[in-house]
Amino acid sequence: MPLLVMKFGGTSVADLARIENAAEKVRREVERGYDVIVIVSAMSGKTNELVSWVEQTSKLYDAREYDAVVASGENISAGLMALRLQEMGVPARSWQGWQVPINTTSAHGSARFVSIPRDHLDAKFAEGFKVAVVAGFQGLSPEGRVTTLGRGGSDTTAVAFAAAFGAERCDIYTDVDGVYTTDPRITEKARKLDRIAFEEMLELASLGAKVLQTRSVELAMRYKVRLRVLSSFEDTDENSGTLVCDEEEIMESKVVSGVAYSRDEAKITLVTIEDRPGIAAAIFGPLAEAGVNVDMIVQNVSEKHMDGSTRAATDMTFSCPTNQVARAKKAMEDAAAAGSIRYADLIVDTDVAKVSVVGIGMRSHAGVAARMFDALAAENINIKVIGTSEIKISVLIDRKYMELAVQALHGVFELDKA
Amino acid sequence: MPLLVMKFGGTSVADLARIENAAEKVRREVERGYDVIVIVSAMSGKTNELVSWVEQTSKLYDAREYDAVVASGENISAGLMALRLQEMGVPARSWQGWQVPINTTSAHGSARFVSIPRDHLDAKFAEGFKVAVVAGFQGLSPEGRVTTLGRGGSDTTAVAFAAAFGAERCDIYTDVDGVYTTDPRITEKARKLDRIAFEEMLELASLGAKVLQTRSVELAMRYKVRLRVLSSFEDTDENSGTLVCDEEEIMESKVVSGVAYSRDEAKITLVTIEDRPGIAAAIFGPLAEAGVNVDMIVQNVSEKHMDGSTRAATDMTFSCPTNQVARAKKAMEDAAAAGSIRYADLIVDTDVAKVSVVGIGMRSHAGVAARMFDALAAENINIKVIGTSEIKISVLIDRKYMELAVQALHGVFELDKA
Repeated sequence: MPLLVMKFGGTSVADLARIENAAEKVRREVERGYDVIVIVSAMSGKTNELVSWVEQTSKLYDAREYDAVVASGENISAGLMALRLQEMGVPARSWQGWQVPINTTSAHGSARFVSIPRDHLDAKFAEGFKVAVVAGFQGLSPEGRVTTLGRGGSDTTAVAFAAAFGAERCDIYTDVDGVYTTDPRITEKARKLDRIAFEEMLELASLGAKVLQTRSVELAMRYKVRLRVLSSFEDTDENSGTLVCDEEEIMESKVVSGVAYSRDEAKITLVTIEDRPGIAAAIFGPLAEAGVNVDMIVQNVSEKHMDGSTRAATDMTFSCPTNQVARAKKAMEDAAAAGSIRYADLIVDTDVAKVSVVGIGMRSHAGVAARMFDALAAENINIKVIGTSEIKISVLIDRKYMELAVQALHGVFELDKA
Repeated sequence: MPLLVMKFGGTSVADLARIENAAEKVRREVERGYDVIVIVSAMSGKTNELVSWVEQTSKLYDAREYDAVVASGENISAGLMALRLQEMGVPARSWQGWQVPINTTSAHGSARFVSIPRDHLDAKFAEGFKVAVVAGFQGLSPEGRVTTLGRGGSDTTAVAFAAAFGAERCDIYTDVDGVYTTDPRITEKARKLDRIAFEEMLELASLGAKVLQTRSVELAMRYKVRLRVLSSFEDTDENSGTLVCDEEEIMESKVVSGVAYSRDEAKITLVTIEDRPGIAAAIFGPLAEAGVNVDMIVQNVSEKHMDGSTRAATDMTFSCPTNQVARAKKAMEDAAAAGSIRYADLIVDTDVAKVSVVGIGMRSHAGVAARMFDALAAENINIKVIGTSEIKISVLIDRKYMELAVQALHGVFELDKA
């Protein structure tokens, strides 16, 4: 029997009416001949309520207790979904993480999958169950305790089940109807993509297009799980939404697939540092230890000299999320105090945004960067930092130009045209 | 290390402030040198919310899914209680039913304990944990699914743990400060009892004094678990509340310990039935099959004759909970239609109440019934049905006299005096 994984996020199971609506979508797939594994999130708002209770009870909370409390939300929606399906005449039951079992590491709050044994669920499908409803976001540690995977972990649960059970597809039902060329709130010319490659989706997800959790896309790419993003709130069929898949499955081959942006970036410049081998390690080692996610890095050409010496000097600029600036600053000050680095000044600029163009076509097309920089120059937007990967070019610019830059790039790469 | 079991009901953990208050009581016992097993109910209102979601989702719900959903409430309060204790510096962690494991039957919604293995918790106490917080009301079926014990099951969980772990005492924290000689809302002369025997508590619990669940008292009696009922909302010490214990531990030996009442009683009379061997079985067999909890039974002396015959006839009267009257009536009508019984009339009186005096002293003191009937006669209260057990005398009277009867009996047996 072909198998589908269907995942419903918090807004898709927010109340009993929405659970019924989601169950209706499951029933239709069963009627089409599928066995279905349904992964559910907690009813929206529930997880936040539970997290707030934990945080109010204990500031430096025990992550194991946090997990035990917070995972309850998914158990509730899993049971209710199974009941609703039964009420529709569909043979279904619910599973909590420990019942499957979904074996994870003991990294409470951000556990990783170890294994999902198939035998238990397979036996139930063989008995005639058509739907296994599994509580998302949770698992079981080697010590026998409840773990959670971190926010958005239900997407990852869905992909992991699709991989473990060889599902034909993993459908992620959410409150948007697919992946867009850019945020439709920024330009109405944004267009829904029918297909997008894993690599592109990864860049978009980590760049701030909040449709899918990055980890779930990574996992889907590794196990070649065809992932579909579609809306819970619309009538959907086999062609709805956006299919995230291997690039070989993609016919249209635009050079650029989307324009992403992120407001929560800050730029930090270390002014006048020694220009010597090992200086980068001396800077980024402590930053990594402090848990700072450094994104782009630029080192100026060496034109300076250290104060009162003839030694070569330069400036180093990097970007990181705004809420990590304090940590980054402290790490640099500590390193300077310990004598491992020296700098004349540390300049923080939180008034910046990152805009990126993403596309697997870039690998075989030259000139994308030039077209991007031209387009920004035509709008008089100054580029502060540039970063690139094989399929992405990112720039840091003044935040006030962010919308303008997205619109300009969306136009110049003709993303509004199918 | 001596061990205590402490149980906190829904109102005692209704919000984070009350959980803190309850944790404070636990901390004090740890400071006195106890290891503690804490049993928690769901935050009050939570279970009702979950039950209502289940019932709205599916009318004839799958009890296994009901249990999976409803047991979540206790998991949340167990985690929060463990966190609060940790925050106070007390080494604590939470256990869900399947983690202990609390092995039960598969009778979902009203499961019974099979075993509570000690090794897991014992090992944790040996490691230095001082408090094990266990989610009440739930367990694990032989099939590996979540079970619940039915309403009030957290009391029973507490007693079962006290029995399994040989606890010095099982303290049930609730919203009243103990067991009273009668309901203080009916007479202000009601007095809190320092001690009460298991048997008396059982009669009081099943007669409508809603302090402890009947099953928990039965279990405590069987395993000689000393049970203490006391208030979450007052300062408490070793002498607070009421101790429910073996009668050998009770010094004061009043003949009557308490006066109980129940409003939800109905009286059913079958008029002119055959007076022959087997007639009682022909009546009460079908009632038992229909799930009617018959309480008191009275058969008149045989002074009648069946219509148009010389066969001896009589009347049979019995009482049952008001909400079972319809079922009882149908069972009798069906038996008559099937020809297994005959009656001239079936009279239902729902305007009655049951008043009972309870006391282990009755076993060795004659004359209690006479004093009771005298007291009621002095108030001009007519007795409709009388029922007795070894330590209890119950009467059915007109409901309008109920308060008066309770007050009169409380006075005549001098229950206001210590």
